[in-house]
Amino acid sequence: MLAAIEAGGTKFVLATGPSPDTMTARHTIPTRDPATTLAEAAQWLAAQGTITAIGIGSFGPVELDPGSDRWGFITNTPKPGWADCDIAGYFRTRLGVLVGFDTDVNAAALAEYRAAETAGCRSLAYLTIGTGIGAGLVLNGVPVHGVAHPEMGHIYPRRHPLDRDFAGVCPHHGDCLEGLASGPAIMARWGVSLSQLPQDHPGHAIIADYIAQACHVLFAAVAVERIVIGGGVAKTAELMECIMARTAELGAGYLPGTARHRIHGPQCGEDAGISGAMMLAQTAR
Amino acid sequence: MLAAIEAGGTKFVLATGPSPDTMTARHTIPTRDPATTLAEAAQWLAAQGTITAIGIGSFGPVELDPGSDRWGFITNTPKPGWADCDIAGYFRTRLGVLVGFDTDVNAAALAEYRAAETAGCRSLAYLTIGTGIGAGLVLNGVPVHGVAHPEMGHIYPRRHPLDRDFAGVCPHHGDCLEGLASGPAIMARWGVSLSQLPQDHPGHAIIADYIAQACHVLFAAVAVERIVIGGGVAKTAELMECIMARTAELGAGYLPGTARHRIHGPQCGEDAGISGAMMLAQTAR
Repeated sequence: MLAAIEAGGTKFVLATGPSPDTMTARHTIPTRDPATTLAEAAQWLAAQGTITAIGIGSFGPVELDPGSDRWGFITNTPKPGWADCDIAGYFRTRLGVLVGFDTDVNAAALAEYRAAETAGCRSLAYLTIGTGIGAGLVLNGVPVHGVAHPEMGHIYPRRHPLDRDFAGVCPHHGDCLEGLASGPAIMARWGVSLSQLPQDHPGHAIIADYIAQACHVLFAAVAVERIVIGGGVAKTAELMECIMARTAELGAGYLPGTARHRIHGPQCGEDAGISGAMMLAQTAR
Repeated sequence: MLAAIEAGGTKFVLATGPSPDTMTARHTIPTRDPATTLAEAAQWLAAQGTITAIGIGSFGPVELDPGSDRWGFITNTPKPGWADCDIAGYFRTRLGVLVGFDTDVNAAALAEYRAAETAGCRSLAYLTIGTGIGAGLVLNGVPVHGVAHPEMGHIYPRRHPLDRDFAGVCPHHGDCLEGLASGPAIMARWGVSLSQLPQDHPGHAIIADYIAQACHVLFAAVAVERIVIGGGVAKTAELMECIMARTAELGAGYLPGTARHRIHGPQCGEDAGISGAMMLAQTAR
């Protein structure tokens, strides 16, 4: 039996099952301090039966270098208490199993890639827009790590003409993508979430423009075929249409492969992260 | 004996040799119309002896989908006469050998990756700044294609405060990276090349800023460990230092893996492209 954890900043989703396609039990717990949260997760998982391997898709930044003795750690996160947390090591020891480990967005990208692969897609980015912004990349079935892992939320989009004065909320970069288009950035400017703004409010076009710029970067710099947009901010159909139209404008039909570019919502719905974590269990080491 | 072609917009570099490490003969011809250029290249290569496979790193856009019947074509290039040119097919037929084929920047990235791999590097981008701007990506030894190939020159950097009025020279996007920071963009603004501008001219900081933004995108969105900057514009040591300093400012020390990020000139010097094309010969199909 495989086990999986989607370790998020606000909740941990837990699941077990014989394969990534079949989750036979699942459970959600709130994220508190590491000691409390990890113990509760391990206890629930152990109660489900004998586990052979566990996959963890975690919020980050995390250490993914297999040559590092801090592999499987959450590293310099600003989340109180969680910096330098050996999350993979905890479950390896507590449950006595091998661990597959990656970022939460790479896990979600893996699950979406598997769904898209049946249509011949071999390159996919999972872009999540919520409390933070991040992107997982899967090329030819393999999550992209590079020297660490992508932190797409921290690129600098061009400022929208109707959004010149807002300083941005990123503590590191001010008006990077996450500083301008994340949930907290929307709240800081307009006091409500995007879906609560009136339909004719310029906020919709502003946020769509920033997300479209990220999509254009993914198409131009990595040449991915598909971009899956997940997370709370991207749940409205109008916004998705706005993002697609603006991305097409930015590309101007030039990029090779344009005809096959797709931007859509998660085919796995809310399950992308936990399904991908189940897939990570199959790569446990 | 392997053969290789670095097919550029102004010249074709040709080489033969027993392995990518050992080029025993090389020759350069000017790029004219396809019929003249390809015939001259084939004639020179055939005169070097019996060839077992050829590698071609070509200017683009090119078709890289192995499932396409246009694999190995130069596609919608604006270069007169070269659109829809079956460059791989020409040499397959003329020389009767299998062909390895990729973009010129992916070929250069392959050669630079091989040089960097000895230092443990597993992810590298080769960014060239010249008549055009492009980036080749190699992750774990494999050139990144995605649905086609990256066209990094067409991302949109933020406009520099001292460069607000210039419209840019890209026929598709106006003020994309290539429209702002390529050789022709520099010439269009200031009438001379960057190295001919006085040392205290703001042009240096402006161009360094745009290139640094591209480096930041590669570090943030793809998490590459190294960026090799090639091409005419990046040949001055002062500019490289400026680019490194500005990239560090943009990252603000936040990105995971920052301590291992490197930006440097080509370790293979002028030979990156043709050496990479020799490596492509080893992947001939």
